[in-house]
Amino acid sequence: MRLSQYFLPLLRENPAEAQIVSHRLMLRAGMIRQSSAGIYSWLPLGLRVLAKVEQIVREEQDRSGAQEILMPTIQPADLWRESGRYDDYGAEMLRIRDRHERDMLYGPTNEEVVTAIVRDAVRSYRDLPKNLYHIQWKFRDEVRPRFGVMRGREFLMKDAYSFDIDQAGAKHSYNKMMVAYLRTFARMGLKAIPMRADTGPIGGDLSHEFQILADTGESEVYCDKAWLDADVLAADVDYDSDLEPFYREWTSRYAATDEMHDAATCPVPATELVTARGIEVGHIFYFGAKYSKPMGALASLADGSTVPLEMGSYGIGVSRLVGALIEANHDDSGIIWPEAVAPFRVGLVNLRAGDAKCVAAADDAYSKLRAAGAEVLYEDRDDSPGAKFATMDLLGLPWQLIVGPRGVAAGTLEVKNRRSGERQNLPAEAALNRLIA
Amino acid sequence: MRLSQYFLPLLRENPAEAQIVSHRLMLRAGMIRQSSAGIYSWLPLGLRVLAKVEQIVREEQDRSGAQEILMPTIQPADLWRESGRYDDYGAEMLRIRDRHERDMLYGPTNEEVVTAIVRDAVRSYRDLPKNLYHIQWKFRDEVRPRFGVMRGREFLMKDAYSFDIDQAGAKHSYNKMMVAYLRTFARMGLKAIPMRADTGPIGGDLSHEFQILADTGESEVYCDKAWLDADVLAADVDYDSDLEPFYREWTSRYAATDEMHDAATCPVPATELVTARGIEVGHIFYFGAKYSKPMGALASLADGSTVPLEMGSYGIGVSRLVGALIEANHDDSGIIWPEAVAPFRVGLVNLRAGDAKCVAAADDAYSKLRAAGAEVLYEDRDDSPGAKFATMDLLGLPWQLIVGPRGVAAGTLEVKNRRSGERQNLPAEAALNRLIA
Repeated sequence: MRLSQYFLPLLRENPAEAQIVSHRLMLRAGMIRQSSAGIYSWLPLGLRVLAKVEQIVREEQDRSGAQEILMPTIQPADLWRESGRYDDYGAEMLRIRDRHERDMLYGPTNEEVVTAIVRDAVRSYRDLPKNLYHIQWKFRDEVRPRFGVMRGREFLMKDAYSFDIDQAGAKHSYNKMMVAYLRTFARMGLKAIPMRADTGPIGGDLSHEFQILADTGESEVYCDKAWLDADVLAADVDYDSDLEPFYREWTSRYAATDEMHDAATCPVPATELVTARGIEVGHIFYFGAKYSKPMGALASLADGSTVPLEMGSYGIGVSRLVGALIEANHDDSGIIWPEAVAPFRVGLVNLRAGDAKCVAAADDAYSKLRAAGAEVLYEDRDDSPGAKFATMDLLGLPWQLIVGPRGVAAGTLEVKNRRSGERQNLPAEAALNRLIA
Repeated sequence: MRLSQYFLPLLRENPAEAQIVSHRLMLRAGMIRQSSAGIYSWLPLGLRVLAKVEQIVREEQDRSGAQEILMPTIQPADLWRESGRYDDYGAEMLRIRDRHERDMLYGPTNEEVVTAIVRDAVRSYRDLPKNLYHIQWKFRDEVRPRFGVMRGREFLMKDAYSFDIDQAGAKHSYNKMMVAYLRTFARMGLKAIPMRADTGPIGGDLSHEFQILADTGESEVYCDKAWLDADVLAADVDYDSDLEPFYREWTSRYAATDEMHDAATCPVPATELVTARGIEVGHIFYFGAKYSKPMGALASLADGSTVPLEMGSYGIGVSRLVGALIEANHDDSGIIWPEAVAPFRVGLVNLRAGDAKCVAAADDAYSKLRAAGAEVLYEDRDDSPGAKFATMDLLGLPWQLIVGPRGVAAGTLEVKNRRSGERQNLPAEAALNRLIA
């Protein structure tokens, strides 16, 4: 994509309304614009990241055997009356009345809708287990939305719902999601640590939240130093095998949020303990028959008797992750995207937009990189070199390829790695090969 | 995907609430379930089709130079007060009040939101042209929602918005979208015919709607017989070239809806005229400064003066297209998917789930097809051959690969084409090669 044609409205100044770094950088880099309080439009650059995050989430859900569906945003209030949550859920629920005066709501979560689908479709233990997920916009009418996409009102969430015939099956489904979540965040270059958590308004018996460590995190967390070296992608997990050993491995290592941590009883010696700030990016719940029982979602056993389905639900904040990724990956100059979620892999900079030789060399690099399938953002505009470098550092693409008059005369291009800052002059062909994944 | 594990709740009987064939077949084939009036959940099979339709739309928008963004579903009423449409738009607009008593609405269309984004980002003619599109859920509170996803309340729409500095530029943007739309529908195996149309509540000077021909269409349409042989994909259009010749080519051939057609003045002789039923799948508008002027979306010219932006908007009913595709592609036994949008390419049927040799042959075919990248739905359940054939015909996958005891003994598999009904016994390897695209 040529910057001269791209819709990328950059801001030179830090916007006053943005209190945290991800919000500032997303506005400055032209990724999002606020539409109303806590509600954002995603501009082309931001949407590319959101789509990559979403796709990684999708691939790991699919790999675990979960099946994708898509439930609507607008739900009937009657379903929430069946579960008993309609009156309990507070002012965060956006309540709506349609033209026929029927009570509706903008879904903050989907336990009721999915339970209604499954109760009509599932009859027997032979139809189970099932795990259905969707990636859909949700709405929570936060009283004070802030921190950009980190705590918005309209937000994109992946929520999965597992249905099993018994508790052992439900625990296996829970374990699958724990593995899938560890893999999902690791693929984005994030270290997300599962911490035992309160179940809150979702309810239930067992729950973990996934926290990533970032200096600007919203809450204090504590974990065993060993977490920092843990590599969750090392093991190639067979989801059909017994996952209890994995579950024990990933939950035995100490990790606690501020509310759960007690220095007096902490089993990890102070020298082995990491104290850091955490950002919640996922949450998994096992809650048994909390919804299936009042809503009559039953299945028959082999002996003909019927039981309510054992359920769990599993959320990942997809739009929130874009903010969290920036909180965990930035410096004073701007964003530093991990490769897996970078909006483009390469920022190609022509330092002299008016110089025919530089234009020819840059155009040539652009077409060769694109032909090789690399995603390239091409800075082809007329601006000062300093402004172009600042823009590229702000946008945070993993690699910069710099075309300048001296290099073109010598037949070389400069390759810069955004994260390390390392720069290297290479013969043009070698430079291009370096950037073709 | 193995049917024994797939979440595919089929209905044996025609559901009473479904008046048209696409609605009946989508319910029977387990593609959708109603959540409330005019609001549907997409189950795994239906979502696969929706995603393929969406992806074709996206690719052709991108090819035309439009850039994808994503605007929120919930919009502030104040923007609609700026354009003057808030009070004009009737009861179809879902009006919402949030916890702070602010007037919001669930967007039925996005002219106001996108104009607000562009007026803040665009300063000069040098920033233009731009065409921004998004694929997002919309809500129109129809008084009598019906026909399944063909006229729902919550529906998925692609809407694009072009911004130009003058009328000539705006007409070029309009032409681009006309070409992109012709290509989009043709890639799905649909013949969509642009017909001059009223501009309705969007407003403006120039407008075409795209109608596909289907026996069960909602309105009568008339067109030159030559349309039936037109091949819009034959020409490889350069979007940067002058598109007026294309525009004239595709609009000169006669095509009119019932309201616009008059037998007395029709230029096409009766022998050359096709009378058919039509379904609207897209609509494009040019409306100049209708929104940019009241909302103050201006750009400066080279001489320093400022002008309101020239705008157009361009819609495709993405979820509606799934129904329209079925209206245009079915028989008494069920759906007949065009290859480009089929949820799976191949339905693999093991006729004897209890027979070890059949299971081995079917498992082998399944793994080989998947290894070759073919999308396969594997009927591995224990059921009668008649029931399995009926299910496969209902689901309408383009190809069926049938594994039975006689064929396995002879080393052959049967290949059936769903559309033609043609069946052929082939040596196993030849059968598999036939199905690998």
